[in-house]
Amino acid sequence: MTTETAGSDKAEGWRDTTIDDAQERANPQTAQAVERIKRLRQSIDNVDTAIVSLLAERFKYTAEVGVLKAQSGFAPEDRQRESRQAERLTKVALDAGLDPSIEESYREFVVTEAKKRHQRIAESMPRS
Amino acid sequence: MTTETAGSDKAEGWRDTTIDDAQERANPQTAQAVERIKRLRQSIDNVDTAIVSLLAERFKYTAEVGVLKAQSGFAPEDRQRESRQAERLTKVALDAGLDPSIEESYREFVVTEAKKRHQRIAESMPRS
Repeated sequence: MTTETAGSDKAEGWRDTTIDDAQERANPQTAQAVERIKRLRQSIDNVDTAIVSLLAERFKYTAEVGVLKAQSGFAPEDRQRESRQAERLTKVALDAGLDPSIEESYREFVVTEAKKRHQRIAESMPRS
Repeated sequence: MTTETAGSDKAEGWRDTTIDDAQERANPQTAQAVERIKRLRQSIDNVDTAIVSLLAERFKYTAEVGVLKAQSGFAPEDRQRESRQAERLTKVALDAGLDPSIEESYREFVVTEAKKRHQRIAESMPRS
């Protein structure tokens, strides 16, 4: 466990700092910052729990879409849908105060994962 | 707009299918599937709105963490924190019925974006 002095500019120390109770005790001058970081991390963890739970629902929905597409002979990809999604979510991001490049990375990640799965479903189905 | 026949196996058609009202009218045999896909897409859109809104909150929290870390001379990276996050979120994913590889991609995406931003904040701050 590293508990290097706050403000240390040793290359090794700068790359990775363990922020925990030991860090707090060892460096009273940054204890308040550590306390605040710990509280923020709890909020970040709560957000992550919510997002991962929502992703679980999202991929249940897209799995069902994948089966319906394969059964109907539709392609895994629907570019019109993707461009509407992009436009809508960019607006949501801007309204929420999120850097649109992060929203774009999120969208790329979920759409790519969903299409990969749609492709796999299509390949595993007997063609009518 | 492509409205190719359902079940078409033309290579071009297979790659991209626009699923919309025109598709529904043109192919009565798959109209029910199109109807169901449209309903699922509405749920997917609702989930995406929720996730993008939560990402906006997440990156507000990590921006604050970035400033606190830079002010205190802490590194952008905290590998112990990352390994605890990984362990916790994998469990959340499994409990929620989400493929852990999707959770892993999500975590990699947000942690990488947050660290990039922490690094930028650190570089923009005068060193004490």
